Amino acid sequence: MGHWLCRAAVSLRELMVQLAELQLPQLRVINAGKSHLNEDQACCEVMLVRQRPSAGGNSDPSRTPTIRRRSSLPNGEGLGLKENADTELGLSFHYWALFDGHAGSGAAVVASKLLQHHIIEHLQEVLDILRNPDLLAPIVQGEEPTNHHLTPTPHRGITRAASLRGAAGAPGSPSQPPPSRFFTEKKVQHESLVMGAIENAFKQMDTQIEKDKAVFNVSGGCTALCALFLLGKLYVGNAGDSRAIIIRAGEVLPMSSEFTPESERQRLQFLAYMQPHLLGGEFTHLEFPRRVQRKEVGKRMLYRDFTMSGWAYKTIEDDDLKFPLIYGEGKKARVLATIGVTRGLGDHELRVHDSNIFIKPFLSCCPEVRVYPLTQYEHGPDDVLVMGTDGLWDVLSNQEVAEAVTCFLANCDPDDKHRYTMAAQDLIMRARGILKDRGWRIANDRLGSGDDISVFIVPLMYGNRQT
Amino acid sequence: MGHWLCRAAVSLRELMVQLAELQLPQLRVINAGKSHLNEDQACCEVMLVRQRPSAGGNSDPSRTPTIRRRSSLPNGEGLGLKENADTELGLSFHYWALFDGHAGSGAAVVASKLLQHHIIEHLQEVLDILRNPDLLAPIVQGEEPTNHHLTPTPHRGITRAASLRGAAGAPGSPSQPPPSRFFTEKKVQHESLVMGAIENAFKQMDTQIEKDKAVFNVSGGCTALCALFLLGKLYVGNAGDSRAIIIRAGEVLPMSSEFTPESERQRLQFLAYMQPHLLGGEFTHLEFPRRVQRKEVGKRMLYRDFTMSGWAYKTIEDDDLKFPLIYGEGKKARVLATIGVTRGLGDHELRVHDSNIFIKPFLSCCPEVRVYPLTQYEHGPDDVLVMGTDGLWDVLSNQEVAEAVTCFLANCDPDDKHRYTMAAQDLIMRARGILKDRGWRIANDRLGSGDDISVFIVPLMYGNRQT
Repeated sequence: MGHWLCRAAVSLRELMVQLAELQLPQLRVINAGKSHLNEDQACCEVMLVRQRPSAGGNSDPSRTPTIRRRSSLPNGEGLGLKENADTELGLSFHYWALFDGHAGSGAAVVASKLLQHHIIEHLQEVLDILRNPDLLAPIVQGEEPTNHHLTPTPHRGITRAASLRGAAGAPGSPSQPPPSRFFTEKKVQHESLVMGAIENAFKQMDTQIEKDKAVFNVSGGCTALCALFLLGKLYVGNAGDSRAIIIRAGEVLPMSSEFTPESERQRLQFLAYMQPHLLGGEFTHLEFPRRVQRKEVGKRMLYRDFTMSGWAYKTIEDDDLKFPLIYGEGKKARVLATIGVTRGLGDHELRVHDSNIFIKPFLSCCPEVRVYPLTQYEHGPDDVLVMGTDGLWDVLSNQEVAEAVTCFLANCDPDDKHRYTMAAQDLIMRARGILKDRGWRIANDRLGSGDDISVFIVPLMYGNRQT
Repeated sequence: MGHWLCRAAVSLRELMVQLAELQLPQLRVINAGKSHLNEDQACCEVMLVRQRPSAGGNSDPSRTPTIRRRSSLPNGEGLGLKENADTELGLSFHYWALFDGHAGSGAAVVASKLLQHHIIEHLQEVLDILRNPDLLAPIVQGEEPTNHHLTPTPHRGITRAASLRGAAGAPGSPSQPPPSRFFTEKKVQHESLVMGAIENAFKQMDTQIEKDKAVFNVSGGCTALCALFLLGKLYVGNAGDSRAIIIRAGEVLPMSSEFTPESERQRLQFLAYMQPHLLGGEFTHLEFPRRVQRKEVGKRMLYRDFTMSGWAYKTIEDDDLKFPLIYGEGKKARVLATIGVTRGLGDHELRVHDSNIFIKPFLSCCPEVRVYPLTQYEHGPDDVLVMGTDGLWDVLSNQEVAEAVTCFLANCDPDDKHRYTMAAQDLIMRARGILKDRGWRIANDRLGSGDDISVFIVPLMYGNRQT
């Protein structure tokens, strides 16, 4: 039996239940092993994008007639073969996702059940294009892609001063109307269409959570990390502080970056600077190394504005006594003294405690999508994609995870069907640690993670080209 | 004679003059080799930051009493020794800068003469701190740096749900007033103070250009790329499309990234989305692969919004017929159909042709600053910093430049005092090419650069620690 999909995902509360489930041979049991109360939620499925009956406008994904098989790959079958078999029906892709909820599990539960269907809906719009690998994306849907390109020149050929003259067709340009196709048309690759579909699916998922909030009693918000294997490429979309890495021949390839108050400080400060009403008169967009005290007005104190990565001194004014938009360091950093992640789904109702200041305008539901051309590489049995919520990465570095997984897999029987599952299980145990008299401890007597921990370990070798 | 500073910088017009100058043994002649009409301007100096007579507020840098030596390093002297000698007087640093002007040379000329003095002024504010390497930057100037840090924990210790409770001292927090120093204070390193000084110096330079515009008839704008060697570290600040790379043992280390309509698309679209009045009703913040035509209203066309890296289709509306904020590809990409760089100094008066739409709100004068710990490495005689305006990089890749420089230097007599100058000269010739019957051609019959080309090649081995 080939383990294409393997996963272990647990919280402290659920650890014992999970461990029991992990012994079962059916992966779908493992995959469904989250209770609805767990703030970490997960999903892994093989999905099929089918032609829509009509090419009409956007429809509710719950009404979209897509066939999908909620199972891992049949035993021993390679992905390339699978996809070819599906092509006549539509386009199949493999899907894994982790959602880390906060202020309740509602948003995480909903997103784990629906995000993939929003992705399908957006892929349906470009299905005909994706199924024809020789075709560039047409600029206008339904039309042949044009090829009226000027020969690209390696330099711009005009000086910057000359370039200040209005472009043909631009407002105020002396040469109205524009000669048609004066400028090169941008060529849009299929890859960009899949990225756009994932990006817009996150947006639509977020809108749906807002709409359904009242009806389904969805509370709180969640981070979202998803991976798709589609047409030979691996797409990883991330909104939040979960993380995905590829381990290839023992080397780490980061497949996501985290979105936190610190990593997005300048975006948030810029927004607050431009729309100061969002701060409700109670916060300042400037950053200080600690809270400013009234007695420090008139003194010169370190600060950072949205334009700065470095620090400088400014004379403290009364306005600087307001609470800073971004405050705290590392895992304690918060936006508006409230939230520690800056991208994700939900949180539409979230406000600063006892105030009417909403947090949502500062949060983004848009993922960063990275692409890995999976079938361009030949992968060994120990090459894997590791996806984990912050409970894992808070206590283990990329390098520690890579070493742990590589070492664990090397010591397994290569024919053991459960090796990836066990490696995920092993990672979780390493991150949680062992209960000692002074609390949960991991290697080198460091503190273990007290957070929920979810991990996928996905072997990459089944993506190898079938030759 | 030790060549610490070497440079060749020419435009097509000035090439012959420059070549003559490059034969001269005095480097300062080479460094001053730009006419005021050249849109590329440059500067290289050894600067001294002296204690200010009084610790008062900001003063005009032209009135700031700083001693500076406008010369390259004396023969055969290493940098470490130089700095030690200067320490009692103040703090010395080496400075190189390139400015690529557009719509006139005014801004570039002014910036090449004054930016370093703004940097000095900002460094003066933190001089006492920088001169004491054992001291952290105090949060309030003049006070001892406090050490009331909580023991840092490797995990956040509270779940995200719990974290949603207001932080102590935050607006609406149940526990007002805050216990003093409840949160960790951020530790600010000296390096961050230098970065902050460079960032704010660019801002001040830009403000000064705006103020002096009327008086000194300063026209247009310019990009700015500067490098400082200070206290053992190399700081590279960049605002525009020039580029700096380090070549170490033949390997390329990028020291800057370019700011263009394409690289800053999402920032600009986000700004326009939030402040649509900046578009004057004539532009749309959405991106399309080409101009939308009236007959396409109602059809579905590829677009990108500020949240997207990928592309998707949208139904074209009347509003989409407006000219796109970002338009064109590569070197032809423009903001508001006007300008091809998105960071730099000046351009305060620049408007869309025949309109009242100003470009400046979309431009940033803030540099990205990167730091290289020069003295932590032992550098060989062929390890160099290469700084160049886009005229160089448009036709030669990082790798081509690294190969050309490494190969050129390897073939020089190691004792030849002019080898770095000649290598810079060689780079310029490679980028410009040779006049053939079909125009200026470089290697492989590609087109040469028709733009101004300026290059610094700075050997790094004089930064080696004196042991």
